[in-house]
Amino acid sequence: MQLGLIGLGKMGANMRTRITAGGHQVVGYDPRPEVSDVASLADLVGALEAPRAVWVMVPSGDPTRSTVAELAELLAPGDIVVDGGNSRYTDDIEHSKVLGAKGIGYIDCGVSGGVWGLENGYGLMAGGSDADIARLMPIFDALRPEGERADGFVHSGPVGAGHYAKMVHNGIEYGLMHAYGEGYELLAAEPLITDVEGTLRAWTHGTVIRSWLLDLLVRALQEDPGLAGISDYTTDSGEGRWTVEEAIRHSVPANVISAALFARFASRQDGSPALKAVSALRNQFGGHSVRNTAGEAVGESGAPPSSPVAGT
Amino acid sequence: MQLGLIGLGKMGANMRTRITAGGHQVVGYDPRPEVSDVASLADLVGALEAPRAVWVMVPSGDPTRSTVAELAELLAPGDIVVDGGNSRYTDDIEHSKVLGAKGIGYIDCGVSGGVWGLENGYGLMAGGSDADIARLMPIFDALRPEGERADGFVHSGPVGAGHYAKMVHNGIEYGLMHAYGEGYELLAAEPLITDVEGTLRAWTHGTVIRSWLLDLLVRALQEDPGLAGISDYTTDSGEGRWTVEEAIRHSVPANVISAALFARFASRQDGSPALKAVSALRNQFGGHSVRNTAGEAVGESGAPPSSPVAGT
Amino acid sequence: MQLGLIGLGKMGANMRTRITAGGHQVVGYDPRPEVSDVASLADLVGALEAPRAVWVMVPSGDPTRSTVAELAELLAPGDIVVDGGNSRYTDDIEHSKVLGAKGIGYIDCGVSGGVWGLENGYGLMAGGSDADIARLMPIFDALRPEGERADGFVHSGPVGAGHYAKMVHNGIEYGLMHAYGEGYELLAAEPLITDVEGTLRAWTHGTVIRSWLLDLLVRALQEDPGLAGISDYTTDSGEGRWTVEEAIRHSVPANVISAALFARFASRQDGSPALKAVSALRNQFGGHSVRNTAGEAVGESGAPPSSPVAGT
Amino acid sequence: MQLGLIGLGKMGANMRTRITAGGHQVVGYDPRPEVSDVASLADLVGALEAPRAVWVMVPSGDPTRSTVAELAELLAPGDIVVDGGNSRYTDDIEHSKVLGAKGIGYIDCGVSGGVWGLENGYGLMAGGSDADIARLMPIFDALRPEGERADGFVHSGPVGAGHYAKMVHNGIEYGLMHAYGEGYELLAAEPLITDVEGTLRAWTHGTVIRSWLLDLLVRALQEDPGLAGISDYTTDSGEGRWTVEEAIRHSVPANVISAALFARFASRQDGSPALKAVSALRNQFGGHSVRNTAGEAVGESGAPPSSPVAGT
Repeated sequence: MQLGLIGLGKMGANMRTRITAGGHQVVGYDPRPEVSDVASLADLVGALEAPRAVWVMVPSGDPTRSTVAELAELLAPGDIVVDGGNSRYTDDIEHSKVLGAKGIGYIDCGVSGGVWGLENGYGLMAGGSDADIARLMPIFDALRPEGERADGFVHSGPVGAGHYAKMVHNGIEYGLMHAYGEGYELLAAEPLITDVEGTLRAWTHGTVIRSWLLDLLVRALQEDPGLAGISDYTTDSGEGRWTVEEAIRHSVPANVISAALFARFASRQDGSPALKAVSALRNQFGGHSVRNTAGEAVGESGAPPSSPVAGT
Repeated sequence: MQLGLIGLGKMGANMRTRITAGGHQVVGYDPRPEVSDVASLADLVGALEAPRAVWVMVPSGDPTRSTVAELAELLAPGDIVVDGGNSRYTDDIEHSKVLGAKGIGYIDCGVSGGVWGLENGYGLMAGGSDADIARLMPIFDALRPEGERADGFVHSGPVGAGHYAKMVHNGIEYGLMHAYGEGYELLAAEPLITDVEGTLRAWTHGTVIRSWLLDLLVRALQEDPGLAGISDYTTDSGEGRWTVEEAIRHSVPANVISAALFARFASRQDGSPALKAVSALRNQFGGHSVRNTAGEAVGESGAPPSSPVAGT
Repeated sequence: MQLGLIGLGKMGANMRTRITAGGHQVVGYDPRPEVSDVASLADLVGALEAPRAVWVMVPSGDPTRSTVAELAELLAPGDIVVDGGNSRYTDDIEHSKVLGAKGIGYIDCGVSGGVWGLENGYGLMAGGSDADIARLMPIFDALRPEGERADGFVHSGPVGAGHYAKMVHNGIEYGLMHAYGEGYELLAAEPLITDVEGTLRAWTHGTVIRSWLLDLLVRALQEDPGLAGISDYTTDSGEGRWTVEEAIRHSVPANVISAALFARFASRQDGSPALKAVSALRNQFGGHSVRNTAGEAVGESGAPPSSPVAGT
Repeated sequence: MQLGLIGLGKMGANMRTRITAGGHQVVGYDPRPEVSDVASLADLVGALEAPRAVWVMVPSGDPTRSTVAELAELLAPGDIVVDGGNSRYTDDIEHSKVLGAKGIGYIDCGVSGGVWGLENGYGLMAGGSDADIARLMPIFDALRPEGERADGFVHSGPVGAGHYAKMVHNGIEYGLMHAYGEGYELLAAEPLITDVEGTLRAWTHGTVIRSWLLDLLVRALQEDPGLAGISDYTTDSGEGRWTVEEAIRHSVPANVISAALFARFASRQDGSPALKAVSALRNQFGGHSVRNTAGEAVGESGAPPSSPVAGT
């Protein structure tokens, strides 16, 4: 079938390759003329035969919202828009209303697999009507991993369900990565373990904790033993936050996922105000030396080494 | 080669099968005569040609300790003992001393894979001397998954390192399982998700969070949709606790693994004393109704529906 | 001065007593005729001399929103509305706009102290313009504890700041209560501690952790030793959730407050779906017995006591 | 009565002052001759009339252990030793055995109050026999806050109970301080709050969260607004760790106290290995830029701004 694809960045370009390899025709648009098939969204729409299917693969938030708004003006009844980005599911419900009012269908599709999806296929979670999902199935089949359709594609529910599933997927991802991170840190801290990288590698086959993320961690350690060249500064792209917010909304205890999220927040701080307060308190009630911002011990300078630190 | 194997329970019996299939001869001992090749540990030792290799596969703690103590009396210099159970690494250091004083070698070997190891091979993490490890390598090769040795076997360090690595492996396992658990719970709580099981299944291929544990969760949900027949009462066998204790010893923040551990503790409580205290406090400072142990609202019975709950 | 007071529930009635004792005149309205001074909000407004000050003390959310909306119709330019309930600060910004468009002032005032405020005075955190705050200061002075004004009253910032401060206050409250709860639970679990209640009571004077909440916990334990009559089922009234949501918005790691919040969620669950998943996983990879919903061990019934639990 | 006091550091010196003010005679020993009454422990023992009471107030661990060992040699049957430091309760049980074998009594007494105890009195938690506790009661009465004995002193149980109670006290202290810290951080992050210090100060009277620690935090902020001069580097002196270890031993979920402990660990790290692993993983599966240790973005340098970050 024919598909319009908006956004030819790293993900979009790889997806185009895979869809094309599946026997479909892709007309791609990107603001960078050197990679774009057409000059504008209007040209993209003009290049497709009705009823059209247009896949939006741009950053979530305003870029996706403005693209969908523009498509609502350009497309015709019977066309379908798929948002394959990482939009919040609440955006989908808005997009579906705006497009639906014009007779245009809407699917939200969570796409997982990163840069490896080109080779392995992408895990897909879709939300929308049965009819709309059926229309796009040839594209989903081209993108998903080979094998049984249910092993790599799911119609999770009505509009919003696809991105909701993807959000939860990413929330789990936060927890998994941090669990491996804690284990790695503990291995690296223990002198008995003389082969940290080898231990992680041995876990990749046969063990209970084998996974694709573990494979990648081993790969990262092979490229950069000790991860010496990598900062611990870790960003987040929104879905971890949304997952915790949804957990709060549904009264679901999310201790693990929130701990992973908060650790990222802390990694980006240049000094924790909370711990400054704790440190200040310890200095106030006494017996505990604290550091000033230059790293020098203060507040206890007169205390002899024999001074007990009890009593607090 | 020839191997004595002590403990022919679920794990031991499967391992015997796999070792035998690797072309080795196993003399097995188990207190249950119907599955044992010999009548006693002494008979086991007598049935092996020196220098002997004896693999202990019994529950950690006292059973393993008493077995090793008995072997120290029965074995001869040049023999080797392997503890393949889930002992704490500090036990290994004791065992190594006691056996080493008699010229008997010692290896601690973490074994992962559960009941699936028979088919898939076991992930192995060994601690001991280079010479001792080399002696046992034919057995390790029979047990580990096929493929490259380093993908499923590691010599993690000196005595203790094998069980230390296995302990960390299990600590990570706690975190991974709970991350999936939280995600599953959130999916199940959201009405938009009309196909929870299908969503989890679609995650098993192509996605970032694909793993063997996820495969098992999908399998469990296929066997028992909604997990309706399973209690949330979750035990723990020690290694999660040890992991957090080691994290404390090494000053490693273990927020995720400890949260997973504490959730298991909570699952086994018949009412949380901590939350009783919180509930009692809310009742004390007022404005908040609490429940008595019969589940009835108390303490606020006179408050009309229009009564504000502010001010606290 | 003269004050209209809407909502004469537990908090409102006590506040009326304290304001009246401060030499002011209160005209109170409540939907329950037997406690109300006037028959309607319109009558309340009619009973006050312009420029009027009306304090709203009703549950947050829709009750407060509809009351403010009604007041916007009834009041005149130059009047002031104070919301003393536990509204979310985002509501304040809406209320301020609606009222401001009609020339009516607005203050959001967090009120803490619970049923004890009548006797001790209430801690007050106000948001609004300098001029509006100054107008209401006689009322704030009547409500706050005796002593220096700054020890019990603060003008935290513009509209919204009062409820924001109150929200954070309550978030801290969650953390404090749970810290005491955990300590209480640990004391109660340790056989060496033969006088749990006495230990908590001894902490109320001289120690670093003395506080009003600790006083209340001792009081609760004196009324109900062992808290035998209290369920651990613990509700929450919104501010803990909002605090964690704000922490997420500001990228503030809120591990302690979120843990306290999630523990309340868990206390209200009849079985944790996350732990059912963990339990199901342990059953899948084997070696671990699980319970069915009747509390019986399943899945491992054939395993002899000597069966090792290693290998997982 | 007469008391030998070993350790005249900050705590010991203040306690001597308070005991003396209570009408008792203190013979003090400290390795620093300029503050010591006697030249050696032997001289201290010689200066006291039998039956003697000797209070040890030195750092926990080896210093206390060696002092007790030395006293076991010097003292006579019928004498009593009190350990008022922050020893782990397991040490008490050892000390009690060693001393008991020689007919010497033993009390472990947790002492709280810090440098403020001189003025306010110290909160005391004692473990030991009824007879031993009764012998020392005049000293406890001199040290504890004025008022009813039970409000500041408790006989928590047999030997070990005093330090166990103190350990839990300090564990709670970790949780309380961190709860205030998180609240402070959130207030400071919110632009609506224009008076952070004033808001905290207003909380000190009338509110639910008023406490001595809050008073100290306000004091710290008055001395150093914004805590600009204080590092977030926060040490710990052992009792938080022990509390979590005891929680693990008793299967008590300690989410709040452990989170506070782990935050201190993190504050002392120069880069989190766990988050390096997370960051490396995000780089591996793609779409996410990471920083190298120089703080520069790496790995995604070729990605255009319009490149979507979805798909991971």
